[in-house]
Amino acid sequence: MTGNTFGDIYSITSFGESHGISIGGIINGFPSGIFIDEDFIQKELDRRRPGQSPFATSRNEGDKLEIQSGIFEGKSTGAPIGFIVKNNNQNSKDYSSIKDIYRPSHADYTWDKKYGIRDYRGGGRSSAREHIARVVAGAFAKLFLKQFDIKITAYTYSVGEISIDYCDFSEMNNPISCPNINKAEEMMQLITSCKSENDSVGCVVACIIENLPVGLGEPVFDKFPAYLSHAMMSINAAKGFEIGEGFNLAKMRGSVANDSFYNERGKIRTKTNYSGGTLGGITNGENVDFKVAFKPIPTISKEQNTVDNKGRETIINVQGRHDSCAITRAIPVVEAMSAIVVMDLLLKNRLSKN
Amino acid sequence: MTGNTFGDIYSITSFGESHGISIGGIINGFPSGIFIDEDFIQKELDRRRPGQSPFATSRNEGDKLEIQSGIFEGKSTGAPIGFIVKNNNQNSKDYSSIKDIYRPSHADYTWDKKYGIRDYRGGGRSSAREHIARVVAGAFAKLFLKQFDIKITAYTYSVGEISIDYCDFSEMNNPISCPNINKAEEMMQLITSCKSENDSVGCVVACIIENLPVGLGEPVFDKFPAYLSHAMMSINAAKGFEIGEGFNLAKMRGSVANDSFYNERGKIRTKTNYSGGTLGGITNGENVDFKVAFKPIPTISKEQNTVDNKGRETIINVQGRHDSCAITRAIPVVEAMSAIVVMDLLLKNRLSKN
Amino acid sequence: MTGNTFGDIYSITSFGESHGISIGGIINGFPSGIFIDEDFIQKELDRRRPGQSPFATSRNEGDKLEIQSGIFEGKSTGAPIGFIVKNNNQNSKDYSSIKDIYRPSHADYTWDKKYGIRDYRGGGRSSAREHIARVVAGAFAKLFLKQFDIKITAYTYSVGEISIDYCDFSEMNNPISCPNINKAEEMMQLITSCKSENDSVGCVVACIIENLPVGLGEPVFDKFPAYLSHAMMSINAAKGFEIGEGFNLAKMRGSVANDSFYNERGKIRTKTNYSGGTLGGITNGENVDFKVAFKPIPTISKEQNTVDNKGRETIINVQGRHDSCAITRAIPVVEAMSAIVVMDLLLKNRLSKN
Amino acid sequence: MTGNTFGDIYSITSFGESHGISIGGIINGFPSGIFIDEDFIQKELDRRRPGQSPFATSRNEGDKLEIQSGIFEGKSTGAPIGFIVKNNNQNSKDYSSIKDIYRPSHADYTWDKKYGIRDYRGGGRSSAREHIARVVAGAFAKLFLKQFDIKITAYTYSVGEISIDYCDFSEMNNPISCPNINKAEEMMQLITSCKSENDSVGCVVACIIENLPVGLGEPVFDKFPAYLSHAMMSINAAKGFEIGEGFNLAKMRGSVANDSFYNERGKIRTKTNYSGGTLGGITNGENVDFKVAFKPIPTISKEQNTVDNKGRETIINVQGRHDSCAITRAIPVVEAMSAIVVMDLLLKNRLSKN
Repeated sequence: MTGNTFGDIYSITSFGESHGISIGGIINGFPSGIFIDEDFIQKELDRRRPGQSPFATSRNEGDKLEIQSGIFEGKSTGAPIGFIVKNNNQNSKDYSSIKDIYRPSHADYTWDKKYGIRDYRGGGRSSAREHIARVVAGAFAKLFLKQFDIKITAYTYSVGEISIDYCDFSEMNNPISCPNINKAEEMMQLITSCKSENDSVGCVVACIIENLPVGLGEPVFDKFPAYLSHAMMSINAAKGFEIGEGFNLAKMRGSVANDSFYNERGKIRTKTNYSGGTLGGITNGENVDFKVAFKPIPTISKEQNTVDNKGRETIINVQGRHDSCAITRAIPVVEAMSAIVVMDLLLKNRLSKN
Repeated sequence: MTGNTFGDIYSITSFGESHGISIGGIINGFPSGIFIDEDFIQKELDRRRPGQSPFATSRNEGDKLEIQSGIFEGKSTGAPIGFIVKNNNQNSKDYSSIKDIYRPSHADYTWDKKYGIRDYRGGGRSSAREHIARVVAGAFAKLFLKQFDIKITAYTYSVGEISIDYCDFSEMNNPISCPNINKAEEMMQLITSCKSENDSVGCVVACIIENLPVGLGEPVFDKFPAYLSHAMMSINAAKGFEIGEGFNLAKMRGSVANDSFYNERGKIRTKTNYSGGTLGGITNGENVDFKVAFKPIPTISKEQNTVDNKGRETIINVQGRHDSCAITRAIPVVEAMSAIVVMDLLLKNRLSKN
Repeated sequence: MTGNTFGDIYSITSFGESHGISIGGIINGFPSGIFIDEDFIQKELDRRRPGQSPFATSRNEGDKLEIQSGIFEGKSTGAPIGFIVKNNNQNSKDYSSIKDIYRPSHADYTWDKKYGIRDYRGGGRSSAREHIARVVAGAFAKLFLKQFDIKITAYTYSVGEISIDYCDFSEMNNPISCPNINKAEEMMQLITSCKSENDSVGCVVACIIENLPVGLGEPVFDKFPAYLSHAMMSINAAKGFEIGEGFNLAKMRGSVANDSFYNERGKIRTKTNYSGGTLGGITNGENVDFKVAFKPIPTISKEQNTVDNKGRETIINVQGRHDSCAITRAIPVVEAMSAIVVMDLLLKNRLSKN
Repeated sequence: MTGNTFGDIYSITSFGESHGISIGGIINGFPSGIFIDEDFIQKELDRRRPGQSPFATSRNEGDKLEIQSGIFEGKSTGAPIGFIVKNNNQNSKDYSSIKDIYRPSHADYTWDKKYGIRDYRGGGRSSAREHIARVVAGAFAKLFLKQFDIKITAYTYSVGEISIDYCDFSEMNNPISCPNINKAEEMMQLITSCKSENDSVGCVVACIIENLPVGLGEPVFDKFPAYLSHAMMSINAAKGFEIGEGFNLAKMRGSVANDSFYNERGKIRTKTNYSGGTLGGITNGENVDFKVAFKPIPTISKEQNTVDNKGRETIINVQGRHDSCAITRAIPVVEAMSAIVVMDLLLKNRLSKN
């Protein structure tokens, strides 16, 4: 109700500010009897950590997962899984320069107006450190989905004006997980040059979900694409979502866009997959593929016009190390939110038929 | 939980199939003491009816709203507002030709697999007639929002490859509500020619929400754009959503994309509005603007390859009158879902501060 | 959220006032593929109708169920089941005598203060006619539960000071469904004499649920007894709930109250069932039995001191035919709400284990 | 949905097992801008701790609240409030004697069957240590309610067969918070003698809520008594609930039971308060008073017949120190759950009128 829970049956309720004691959450609806590979979860968490590559900030946060409950003798018990990840540097910085000033395109102003109070230390609750709880819940969901061979792969589709022109997952082993090695090089150069210019740049993350069963999605309001887009657009800096051919479909004719059915050795399939794996809001067994657009990270070390919390016009120039592109951080969060959505809908689908 | 309710505090729970007895719903959370202009609500309902223009099907459904409860002596009582809209033609048609066949890019196949049973008459629950309940709930929400001068305007942004190159709302009085009279003509010609070719075409609806207060949106999971995109992507045939500059932002530099704050006669405003009226997932007082991409209507009177419900390959050719573009029908639904989102978030925002 | 929905997975959302157009509701979460016996549902509805016995008011409301959706070719489709029951006499009465006056121990005053407006015709939304929607949803649930041989039987435990001293279900075929024919006679005499004195009397309904599986109930907040008591205490005039030995357990020693386990031909059972079929909030396979206390119906044809809606003290004497005891009306509602609870928890229990 | 969240707007989601790392929770919906008195919250937590009196177990758990988030510079920020309370003795005990055995009237058997796995250490999630999270959330709610002078007082009404015969709150300063000093002495003797006999005894907690506004409760399903009884019956060992005269009302005539309205210096009041402060499920401004029955604590150091997890009959005799009556532990939890209910309904009531 108040925006800190995502999911109905499988759900994550999260808490925590960038510079509070810890970030954490409670996972509910994780069925009992599943072996919990904590190393896997920690590795997922490590993927979103800054300092994973030269293209993200070098601050090593060393986020360490501390599971509090819900697991006994290595298995889930059906009880809620509480967890925390301590914030190590919560008192280390001087925030007096931004304490009373609203950073352009940040959450400072709107948060302050909504709540009448603002934890200005590192963005408080509006910081992307909040994504930690999502990644943990997503990692648990992946453990569940593994049983069904469901596989979720997010990757870099574009950085700035540079988009991939083909997609070969064998080329994806690069710091920005881009399945197109030539474009990956260009993108990384662009990120580096943005960094050196104290600027930032936007990006698009694409994601593919394989081996989904037919039947996921709860019409009419919680259709698969609707629920998925909710999940994606709740990630910091997300500004657009499309599934399948998305906005391109708006340009097409029905005679071209319709995905014809055929029978492939007893399995009903479609010849094309412009729809992106859902029909009428329900998965059809084809791969779900979608894209999420992220705006440039608003923190830049340049002079910008802004106002303070008394409405006085002023100039801000945020110093310090910042990511110049969200791409490496966004990828694991896109996967995590996808995993939560898929798991929740899988569980809901147990309830459709008698 | 089961996908037939949208909204938390202000909510619509809907029921009804295309060819059942009625489409209807229950509105909850509408505060007491508001004068209910039933004429206005009926007019909103009339807007989505087919047969409103040559660009939509000519079948006149004559949808008549019958409010059952929740209003006394012209005012809302705080009790749930039940309503029905009867289906008049529910037994009028022969569906034997599609009864056992899955229409390409329709919900037939996925619905049948999910529930093991399919009401094939006119699409059953997957029909766009379901939108009736949304439009009614949206019209009630508009009555509430009128008190705050909040105004929601959806319009045609593109049809097929034709997009507007400027936006002048004084030119919007045309059958497709396109604020660009030259492009409107071209678009209508395109729709007409698709119709004559027994084909269909996709479109993009844009929408602007004016006079929103600062503070709407519930981080971290129910941010304004996240909740809004959920609403939009739940509309039949929606395939993409973007807010503000959306996917374009992914191409931009931070130094360009950031919306600088300034003080306009005591009010904090931004010079640009690339963000589309939200920061950190909360409205900032600027106009919210967003776009929704719709795929071409999948029902076309052309031969298409498909399978039947035993998996046998076959050919389908759906005869009869069909819309060739969703545009006129989608516009009122986009407005309605926007109104529900805004009203729900306005009510939630009463709870943020002590 | 706003109090007009009960149930999470299997749920009823209801609407309607005593003298509005109709009472109705939407059932969600009813799985597809179940044969719907509409005669059974109508019969359940008939059970709660007044005029079923000399011990209830003789007004024949003739409530006729009109299902709107969710059923196709005799079976549930998984889509929401909308239904209405028309109010036939909505304009037949003069309410001017109670329009501005608050009837003692009725909802008039509190409803008026909460919402600032009050539909005074027959109690409006606070009327027990609202129970119609519960009984319909309960009847659907019973159709579902029948598959598992789960049986719910509510009966008269006491009227006024008269309680049963044994329970023999073979004696239950009497107008007040009391499984103790001697006490039944006394109770009916008491009701008759209350009626002749223009007075009313309270009662206790007991209920037994048989053949429940082990495992129903969702700790820690939605334990079986917690959820069940919520359901019961939401019925008009309910003032108390107890499960198993209930308040008597508070008087007992642990060494007496504990229900010992034993093995009955391979099935784990308890020798006594003081707990009433739940342990730790979860069903243990024994019968669930519980009681609900109802206060006397507050409408009596006697002079009573009260105030009007301007706070002026006055005297009220409500004329007309009224029930003098809730018992015959309460029994089917207690069963209906039990059925909804059990069905919802059965569905939830599909989600506990991997 | 899965039973670990209570409350809609103001809510607590909890986690933790008796012998896991910690017990904790996340509070949502606590409005921003409220000064947080952490000492008060710790004191509330201390009240439920065992070892507070000779009538509870002497194990000193020393539960220390560690707030993780949601508070900045001493005030609530509107962000979720995460907290943990570490379990200190989680590895200290040998549970091998009960590991495979189901203790009579405990949750062991039902939990094991429901989830297929059971954390047998100290009852795991079914332990009353879970109440810690409730008490913390209740203490926060009390801070909120203090602004409106709303006061919640739970007290001992009966222990075993001994009930108070008058209620004088000036006499309540005794170890079992019984407002009747003579009966308090008798009750404490009874508890002591049960302890010496290795037995336990049941009890009834009564509670009074003062200074509630008119209008709390959300008909028709979330009426004040319905929601409150849900809260109470979710507490470990609760077996009965009644509001106002409760089960006694079932014995009364309407002419006696009805609470007449009168005007007390401009305020509408009732002469009697048999209804217990609610009419039609909504508070009427009179004190809410209710009672909760608790069964005897099932852990007793006596030989009992039972079965093991293979269904084999056996004898159990649980050694060690145990509470012999729930009374001192139950009182703070009854208050806490009341506070959560009242706060949630107060916030919801902000939404009723335009």
